[in-house]
Amino acid sequence: MSHIASQRSANSLEFRYAQTRAYSLELIRGLSAEDCQLQSMPDASPLKWHLAHTTWFFETFVLGALDTPPPPLDPRYRILFNSYYVGVGERHLRAERGLLSRPSLDEVLHYRQHVDQHMSALLATGDQSGKLNELIELGLQHEQQHQELMLTDLKHHFACNPLQPAWRDAAPEHPQAEQDKSAQQFVSLAGGLCEIGHSTAEFSYDNEGPSHKVWLEPFQIADRNVNNGDFLAFIADGGYQRPELWLSDGWDWVCSHEVKAPQYWQHRDQQWVIFTLAGEQPLNHGAPLCHISLYEADAFARWSEARLPTEMEWEHAAREHPELGGLFGEVWQWTNSAYLPYPGYQPAAGAVGEYNGKFMINQMVLRGSSCATPNGHSRPSYRNFFPAAARWQFSGLRLARNP
Amino acid sequence: MSHIASQRSANSLEFRYAQTRAYSLELIRGLSAEDCQLQSMPDASPLKWHLAHTTWFFETFVLGALDTPPPPLDPRYRILFNSYYVGVGERHLRAERGLLSRPSLDEVLHYRQHVDQHMSALLATGDQSGKLNELIELGLQHEQQHQELMLTDLKHHFACNPLQPAWRDAAPEHPQAEQDKSAQQFVSLAGGLCEIGHSTAEFSYDNEGPSHKVWLEPFQIADRNVNNGDFLAFIADGGYQRPELWLSDGWDWVCSHEVKAPQYWQHRDQQWVIFTLAGEQPLNHGAPLCHISLYEADAFARWSEARLPTEMEWEHAAREHPELGGLFGEVWQWTNSAYLPYPGYQPAAGAVGEYNGKFMINQMVLRGSSCATPNGHSRPSYRNFFPAAARWQFSGLRLARNP
Amino acid sequence: MSHIASQRSANSLEFRYAQTRAYSLELIRGLSAEDCQLQSMPDASPLKWHLAHTTWFFETFVLGALDTPPPPLDPRYRILFNSYYVGVGERHLRAERGLLSRPSLDEVLHYRQHVDQHMSALLATGDQSGKLNELIELGLQHEQQHQELMLTDLKHHFACNPLQPAWRDAAPEHPQAEQDKSAQQFVSLAGGLCEIGHSTAEFSYDNEGPSHKVWLEPFQIADRNVNNGDFLAFIADGGYQRPELWLSDGWDWVCSHEVKAPQYWQHRDQQWVIFTLAGEQPLNHGAPLCHISLYEADAFARWSEARLPTEMEWEHAAREHPELGGLFGEVWQWTNSAYLPYPGYQPAAGAVGEYNGKFMINQMVLRGSSCATPNGHSRPSYRNFFPAAARWQFSGLRLARNP
Amino acid sequence: MSHIASQRSANSLEFRYAQTRAYSLELIRGLSAEDCQLQSMPDASPLKWHLAHTTWFFETFVLGALDTPPPPLDPRYRILFNSYYVGVGERHLRAERGLLSRPSLDEVLHYRQHVDQHMSALLATGDQSGKLNELIELGLQHEQQHQELMLTDLKHHFACNPLQPAWRDAAPEHPQAEQDKSAQQFVSLAGGLCEIGHSTAEFSYDNEGPSHKVWLEPFQIADRNVNNGDFLAFIADGGYQRPELWLSDGWDWVCSHEVKAPQYWQHRDQQWVIFTLAGEQPLNHGAPLCHISLYEADAFARWSEARLPTEMEWEHAAREHPELGGLFGEVWQWTNSAYLPYPGYQPAAGAVGEYNGKFMINQMVLRGSSCATPNGHSRPSYRNFFPAAARWQFSGLRLARNP
Repeated sequence: MSHIASQRSANSLEFRYAQTRAYSLELIRGLSAEDCQLQSMPDASPLKWHLAHTTWFFETFVLGALDTPPPPLDPRYRILFNSYYVGVGERHLRAERGLLSRPSLDEVLHYRQHVDQHMSALLATGDQSGKLNELIELGLQHEQQHQELMLTDLKHHFACNPLQPAWRDAAPEHPQAEQDKSAQQFVSLAGGLCEIGHSTAEFSYDNEGPSHKVWLEPFQIADRNVNNGDFLAFIADGGYQRPELWLSDGWDWVCSHEVKAPQYWQHRDQQWVIFTLAGEQPLNHGAPLCHISLYEADAFARWSEARLPTEMEWEHAAREHPELGGLFGEVWQWTNSAYLPYPGYQPAAGAVGEYNGKFMINQMVLRGSSCATPNGHSRPSYRNFFPAAARWQFSGLRLARNP
Repeated sequence: MSHIASQRSANSLEFRYAQTRAYSLELIRGLSAEDCQLQSMPDASPLKWHLAHTTWFFETFVLGALDTPPPPLDPRYRILFNSYYVGVGERHLRAERGLLSRPSLDEVLHYRQHVDQHMSALLATGDQSGKLNELIELGLQHEQQHQELMLTDLKHHFACNPLQPAWRDAAPEHPQAEQDKSAQQFVSLAGGLCEIGHSTAEFSYDNEGPSHKVWLEPFQIADRNVNNGDFLAFIADGGYQRPELWLSDGWDWVCSHEVKAPQYWQHRDQQWVIFTLAGEQPLNHGAPLCHISLYEADAFARWSEARLPTEMEWEHAAREHPELGGLFGEVWQWTNSAYLPYPGYQPAAGAVGEYNGKFMINQMVLRGSSCATPNGHSRPSYRNFFPAAARWQFSGLRLARNP
Repeated sequence: MSHIASQRSANSLEFRYAQTRAYSLELIRGLSAEDCQLQSMPDASPLKWHLAHTTWFFETFVLGALDTPPPPLDPRYRILFNSYYVGVGERHLRAERGLLSRPSLDEVLHYRQHVDQHMSALLATGDQSGKLNELIELGLQHEQQHQELMLTDLKHHFACNPLQPAWRDAAPEHPQAEQDKSAQQFVSLAGGLCEIGHSTAEFSYDNEGPSHKVWLEPFQIADRNVNNGDFLAFIADGGYQRPELWLSDGWDWVCSHEVKAPQYWQHRDQQWVIFTLAGEQPLNHGAPLCHISLYEADAFARWSEARLPTEMEWEHAAREHPELGGLFGEVWQWTNSAYLPYPGYQPAAGAVGEYNGKFMINQMVLRGSSCATPNGHSRPSYRNFFPAAARWQFSGLRLARNP
Repeated sequence: MSHIASQRSANSLEFRYAQTRAYSLELIRGLSAEDCQLQSMPDASPLKWHLAHTTWFFETFVLGALDTPPPPLDPRYRILFNSYYVGVGERHLRAERGLLSRPSLDEVLHYRQHVDQHMSALLATGDQSGKLNELIELGLQHEQQHQELMLTDLKHHFACNPLQPAWRDAAPEHPQAEQDKSAQQFVSLAGGLCEIGHSTAEFSYDNEGPSHKVWLEPFQIADRNVNNGDFLAFIADGGYQRPELWLSDGWDWVCSHEVKAPQYWQHRDQQWVIFTLAGEQPLNHGAPLCHISLYEADAFARWSEARLPTEMEWEHAAREHPELGGLFGEVWQWTNSAYLPYPGYQPAAGAVGEYNGKFMINQMVLRGSSCATPNGHSRPSYRNFFPAAARWQFSGLRLARNP
């Protein structure tokens, strides 16, 4: 991760710590302990686990780095709430996170308070080192990532319940987006030798750098994300039945899972409805297409006689044309770039170095941010990544094409 | 099921209804809503689901049989809490019962109250028909079965938590059983033409009848169940490494699951400990062996130069020698009989007819009852049944042999 | 196995050895080495393997029992062609039998000749012991069992080839059976205390004894096997879509495998055709129903308001009414008896004792014999056994019912 | 694919056709029809199938493009020997290729002759169009690819046979390579704006172009491939037991498959032996490391404090420093580049367009060529690709690092 600007006052970090930690609690407002324990698939963790794991991060990497770390509230939490940091020791099985009725939600909230008190004391002194400040900043960014996962995971959990529970009356998705009847317009970019990657003094993850040159051929990119109406035309044209539109793995995936529509779409009584965090809603043609796999994104692009942008094209376009619609805050946009290290990439030393680098295989990059991304967690250099078949994130697409 | 004795007063049924329903609630005393939602494998349901499903049974088969059934508290419960009665319509997936955070435990308890009030009103009138009384009786027996499952399922759920939670400080198992150092003694029975199956006016399930004749050769049966000390000798003698002791399917099971001991046994720091409903305990050599598959029971019997009894031998011995130790209240005892219909067996008409008959394939019979069986739910003709590999029930064995 | 009658001359055994061994070769006449190597599922072995394994049996259990066994042609065959006799040592994986291009078919035929020469020399002396004669007899019976499997396995292998190869122009099945338009008639039997199991001096497997008493209630049994026409009525009546007709495991099997007809049936161009050892044939309504699982047999019986006989009923009826149609030589007839030991059953000592007893779990008994059963391999006490879902054998059913 | 130079005479193509087709037959010399039918996993096809499928390619895409295509030898081969070209219609299941005993090897060889005769006649006229010549060239390149697969697949098939058959006495691998005791030396390259991709008049696949610019940072690359001795040091240092050396997916793969060495390595009697196409051989420390997954390549590189090159770095180095050892003819070299389209990539029109593009997901690029690659099938721009876990190809690695 990049160095944190020296001008950031300790107060500011203290404030942001309080603010970020509070927002995680805000997300579970109105949910029961039972809701917070659900785990509907190995990839989607219980909300209670997210609350505990983000706390574990501060306890392990920040408080644990002090000369005299405070005694743990419960030493067994070190194993229970470790996600994948093998450098920290044994882990609890990911697929069995939903089987932890103990510690209870109340106990986890108490654990949060316990760590928050120690963190508050640390932040109040204002004399923590730059290295420690970086770890705290990383912890906050980490918690923000999990805040988005709390929403995508909860949506998946709730969708498995035939009662179709709602998180809130108003969904973070865009079901009321105005119908955008205009066709997509393509913006042309000249390419050439461009600078890609994070280069400012602001925080970034290690995988966003080093900043480096890439050569781009001229390309065009759409001025908005593909919307539901666009995708309905693909379905109506037999998109899910035409192998020539699909990558080979994609076609196998369509056949073996009998995929006929994006995740959370249901065709009922002659109309499409979608499951949202506000419960079931009629499909809005103008809202951005969401919950699709890379395979669907790629097939739609081929059907459109276009293609997905690379992550470099996306980032370059986002910097040159920040006015493009829906870059941030709508849906993550699949790119046709594999998640691999930039030239000169070096993971951070120690266990926090496992944050990003070890996942650089078998995943594709998504750019932008979604309706579920917390404020302040978006930037042009941000690299999100998921396997090509993943659909439970707020994932959509923006078209690109050659001139 | 047999006819219910006409002398049983409506009052008595009313009393037993209250008592049985209350005992289900007693079982969850001290547990949280989170505990009651756990589902650690498809076969082991959440306790909340058991509480709801037993209620659903009364609502569907008793209140639903009235001329004017009361309005349902929530019509969607009809699907959510149906277990396997296809005659009643759609069902919710068994493996996803743990994903129902809604309805909450509180709502399920409210559902119980709702049905209990209607049942109370019905029972208070005292003029329900014999047919209805039979269904109520069946509902109570059904709830008692689920009370045992609540304990075996909870044990499995808790065993998946590294924190090893305890249900109560005192376990229903027999960890403090006195060491029985005496060898098993075998009682001899002459066999001949015997009567098997339920034949009294008391309640029984349909699968316990009709009472019928079977011819038994002379046999011997042990005066106590096999205990942990007996089984340790089998382990010490390489029992789990010697294929000649095992049925072919059993040996495949041992190899593919790397089985080295009964379920819930752990060898740690040079000694055996077991997980119980009171948490982890040292292994008591004198306590009855428990949580074994039929494969383990069969291999142990072969190693002992003995065999499992048939269910007919067991029942005949239990009637002739009720003084045999541990027939009831210790562990269910595997027999070498497949679960199949008795001659002339007819399932009850309608959906309640699905109670037993449709499971008569690929299962083996266990006889007796266990430490988790509710009072009044044991009798010599009772036929319990599970697949040969099942171990999460309180299942043990008693040896038999030829003279 | 029972004792072999002392009056059987060594010559007779010599003759039968030659005859039985020759018939295995007759079965592969017209097939290529490539045909004989096919393995279409783990349960269905290559014909080359059957030819080798039956030879291995004589080499291991007969020649290997001599004071000075002849040197093996290839010591590695001891592992390669062992099926499941753990007492004999290591085995080659069942599912990988089709991956043995070496030894070639020619080498396997040479192996047969090698063992046959040594067996001939042994049989010519005529002074082998009674114990050895029993093992030779067991080897011949074992080879006959495999001769039936050679046909059922080959049928499965060939059915996977879109070219639909034929074994012979004339199928051993009964596709030209005359249409039997008469309804099934039921024969009544009084039951009572009956003797069941093998009791003559002729050969039998150990699992057919000891002969013992069973008590049978009065019952009725059909005078012919269910035929294709009967089963078409079941299909037409929605038999595969009505869960109430099925055992619970059976219904799961129907749904997960999307079963809509017996194995090898295809509905094409508005008519049913079946794949046979003579290639594809139109379905003959009068021919015995074949290639069904126990689940289908049981569901058909329930739909017919009848049931499957027990194996004891079947055997008793076959002895009392040998004139019943289709007892032998048509299809194996599923019974509703689990494959379990008879009272007093003792497996033979040593590795041959693994022949039958270790499979006595999770299987159901079929009685009679099929069109593929070699001459002389049928008798009323014969117990065939397969898991309830198995369909690749020539398996059908005969109805029974209560009076 | 690029345009074929117009100066290539028809004669030359005729000669190369004969030569290439003959080499496929040379590869099966000494093998039986049974050997040629083996299929040990879905990814590894029978040699008979390769022989037929490469013929099908000419029949379908070349002869089928003629104004009056010759009548097919057997119209059913169109389905049987189609691999994945959905544009050509139905396909036979990949995993069931080993179940085709019919057509026999003889029939397949006859099929080859049949197509060869028509192709000869076509080539003899010398007046085929440039478009047709391109398809013929593509067919020859396609057959060369399958010639390499014939060896890697056969090796996998034979390795499953406990008899460990050998293809030839002399293996194409390098088991007798001289021990190279010198450490690897790293060559430095300055990078900058480089041209990557195929740009000459010679044949190339469509995925090798268009030729395009990329910006490369300065890097270093090793002057030889990693050898077995190098990798033994990794194993001795606990390489397979240290999660910090592995990508997350790689560590999961090591654990779930219990990987302890490269494929075909066995540790026996205190020494390492490897299975080769010449049977089992002692491990030669100086020979290039082979049969490793990308995960192993990546972990070894991390342990070596180096990394894998990108495919662009590899190609650039191969052009600038053709003297580097082992670029071609030893082992395919894993790169850390995902197999994705080059800027401006366009698949060919029609079914041949399915050749490459549809596989551009979830695979990693390997560069160079191996001991099994046919003469004339190597070039600096060649892009081979396999999933990260694949090991049955002749895959190794060459290290790179940052200056």
